[in-house]
Amino acid sequence: MSYIPLEAHLPGITGLLEYRQDSAEPIRHLTQLLLRGPSTLTEAERELIATVVSSGNECTFCTTAHTAAADLLHGDPHLTQQVKKDVATAPLSFKMKVLLTIADLVRQSGQLVTPEIIAQAKAAGATDLEIHDTVLIAALFCLYNRYVDGLATALPAEPAFYDQLAQRLVVHGYTRLPQGYDHLKK
Amino acid sequence: MSYIPLEAHLPGITGLLEYRQDSAEPIRHLTQLLLRGPSTLTEAERELIATVVSSGNECTFCTTAHTAAADLLHGDPHLTQQVKKDVATAPLSFKMKVLLTIADLVRQSGQLVTPEIIAQAKAAGATDLEIHDTVLIAALFCLYNRYVDGLATALPAEPAFYDQLAQRLVVHGYTRLPQGYDHLKK
Repeated sequence: MSYIPLEAHLPGITGLLEYRQDSAEPIRHLTQLLLRGPSTLTEAERELIATVVSSGNECTFCTTAHTAAADLLHGDPHLTQQVKKDVATAPLSFKMKVLLTIADLVRQSGQLVTPEIIAQAKAAGATDLEIHDTVLIAALFCLYNRYVDGLATALPAEPAFYDQLAQRLVVHGYTRLPQGYDHLKK
Repeated sequence: MSYIPLEAHLPGITGLLEYRQDSAEPIRHLTQLLLRGPSTLTEAERELIATVVSSGNECTFCTTAHTAAADLLHGDPHLTQQVKKDVATAPLSFKMKVLLTIADLVRQSGQLVTPEIIAQAKAAGATDLEIHDTVLIAALFCLYNRYVDGLATALPAEPAFYDQLAQRLVVHGYTRLPQGYDHLKK
């Protein structure tokens, strides 16, 4: 049971974003910008960063939700699984492997990121902005994972919840749904 | 040297908030709400949460900046030092000791927060919203600490920078300074 009273039909982050809507607004806005805004990283690649960080932090809700979103965007349900298992051997560009490795270091501590791995990322073609965004997305999911688990939010009663949520995240992004979309809120 | 090109006169988070201003805006907004918005926790208490988390994550820039802000708000430069050394023996209310302990658990992993420590916080008078905000502030500073250290931002050349920054955070908060306040930007 969650540590604060949250709506029972809203598991994981969804109940928290309803609980305090004024703080939810900038969290949604930041996530929309970083994961859906203009970028030379694809939406699928950015969802992979979110997934790798959430998986490393063992946050079940976030990992399952972003795995579903990444799968939907990639159109290949095996890729995300391979990435979560071992980034080094997953069928990704070398640049993405290095960026995901940086994300996982940031997850553990910002101080673990070395000049050498940054040099590798740049040699593989990563731009300064891609490196910046990788670090900030990783840091943002360290926030999300702690928010979701630190208040002991519930997992969805139905596993199909994650597919519906992923569908929503792919079609509508992270902004608050307007009135009339209440059926998509869960 | 920072891993991406940042303005040399803007150390720590300050250069990052200038580097990508569109993502800076919701980060500033969230911080302003949580640390300066209406709350039954004082601004000084909320700066203590930021300080304890940054100190635990060994983020020199954030720890020094929020120590200076907390000192200024408390009017007692010894309190923050005692809190960073040992929350249990610092001259704080029992409620604040429990909330700071929760913040430090969240810092390590959301999964470390137990029903027992939440019950202790509630028995000490903490409200649901105070518990929520403690967890979210701790999670937010996990973002900041990783952002600042993951991109190897510079420390200020002059230690007086932190006192000027603390003065600004206490007087102006976390929102972007309007035009004409450029001399306060550092």
